[in-house]
Amino acid sequence: MERVLKLTIAYDGTSYVGWQRQAEGVSIQGLLEHALARIEGAPVVVHGAGRTDAGVHALGQVASARVATAHDAAVIRRALNAMLPGDVRVVAVEDAAAGFHARYSAAGKAYEYRIWQGDVQPPFARAWSWHVPRPLDVDAMDLAVRRLEGTHDFSAFQSTGGGVRSAVRTVTCARAEARAPWAGVAGDPGPGAGSGAGDRLIVVRLEADGFLRHMVRAVVGTLVEVGERRRAEASVEALLDSRDRTASGATAPAHGLVLVRVIYL
Amino acid sequence: MERVLKLTIAYDGTSYVGWQRQAEGVSIQGLLEHALARIEGAPVVVHGAGRTDAGVHALGQVASARVATAHDAAVIRRALNAMLPGDVRVVAVEDAAAGFHARYSAAGKAYEYRIWQGDVQPPFARAWSWHVPRPLDVDAMDLAVRRLEGTHDFSAFQSTGGGVRSAVRTVTCARAEARAPWAGVAGDPGPGAGSGAGDRLIVVRLEADGFLRHMVRAVVGTLVEVGERRRAEASVEALLDSRDRTASGATAPAHGLVLVRVIYL
Repeated sequence: MERVLKLTIAYDGTSYVGWQRQAEGVSIQGLLEHALARIEGAPVVVHGAGRTDAGVHALGQVASARVATAHDAAVIRRALNAMLPGDVRVVAVEDAAAGFHARYSAAGKAYEYRIWQGDVQPPFARAWSWHVPRPLDVDAMDLAVRRLEGTHDFSAFQSTGGGVRSAVRTVTCARAEARAPWAGVAGDPGPGAGSGAGDRLIVVRLEADGFLRHMVRAVVGTLVEVGERRRAEASVEALLDSRDRTASGATAPAHGLVLVRVIYL
Repeated sequence: MERVLKLTIAYDGTSYVGWQRQAEGVSIQGLLEHALARIEGAPVVVHGAGRTDAGVHALGQVASARVATAHDAAVIRRALNAMLPGDVRVVAVEDAAAGFHARYSAAGKAYEYRIWQGDVQPPFARAWSWHVPRPLDVDAMDLAVRRLEGTHDFSAFQSTGGGVRSAVRTVTCARAEARAPWAGVAGDPGPGAGSGAGDRLIVVRLEADGFLRHMVRAVVGTLVEVGERRRAEASVEALLDSRDRTASGATAPAHGLVLVRVIYL
């Protein structure tokens, strides 16, 4: 009997060409399809909620697949993890409603972007944060990013090649905040910190009904210029109005970005 | 004029043969000596406080070196970091007293060992934690490890080949405690978590005036058996008395171990 599986997946994107199957290189989608096909005994197509780019990570990517296997969801999860490399983990497998599709059923997605601000970037933070040695005014970055909340045309923050008809999206939450890089006992960050007292992690969080190509990274590149006081925080509204990608900041590197969650209502 | 530098170093040991120079492979000591020689314009010997094994990490390794360069300590730190790979970072460079030697001046060292206990080990925790899927009684582990505090003969926790005369060491602090793997806003562990609610990080901390070969890893291997209730927590004292390495637990894998701090009084 056919059923629809909902997979929740975490990955370190460092070694991959991104979510989507490509002519060259290893993709997360390809790895999952290959592993699921071994359980199914036939080819399986896996649809992901977000097509993360090369080097982008995920904590809560969601994918759907139609299968006929009679195995219990927990058995499928363990079997997938036994076949997948350690930098790709299936966190949960559930049976979903018949019409469920990871991408088309999604109401929204949340991304986080991590900036390591300080003199020395600790070895274990390298894979998942962008190192910015110069001081950043996080309060100004937070005020600036909050101006993106609401329904706007985000053409100024879209790379070409996205192939979408409309650049209008609704951002439901936008924040930039500093976090202590080494909180100690309560929340262990792994053996990451150890550098100067002024070091901190800046996390930019964007939640929206949809994202354009490189949208979070273009926003973060612009926010860093705000943080450096090379751009006024209020100028973000004029940027939105301009719909001009060349007017906004550079695209921040992929390895600081994480797909945190996909929202289904 | 000759001066003694004190270097504080953090590294991800994954790719290295360990601290010490070897006939084959890349060592942290070798990398530092090579980089420092370029600044000095002559060969430099770097002495480390702890000879971490292959795959072991450091947050606060300390090394000393006699140099003649007139550069400011901060300039040397920046120059070293510009030459070293990103998984080896010089956190601090200071001028030390003339007689300072990283190893012989050290009063003690603190190591931490991280165990990821839960069904799914998150991708970013792989490099620095040992994945133990089965449940562990952390309270029993804590009671057991506290029994190691004090001055004892640690032969039962020493691998052969250490080449030391005495196995007597003084453990000044020994603890095992569970930490929430994903504390969220306050202490950001990086994009690591996302797995089951029962998952947690167990950190074993040992501070001593000196450590024998594989001592922390033999202690951790024994503690995991205590946590699994295959060994009573009180049996640790009989183990110490036995001085028999074959009576204690297996050596835990290197990649969960971190040299956290070197203590100078």
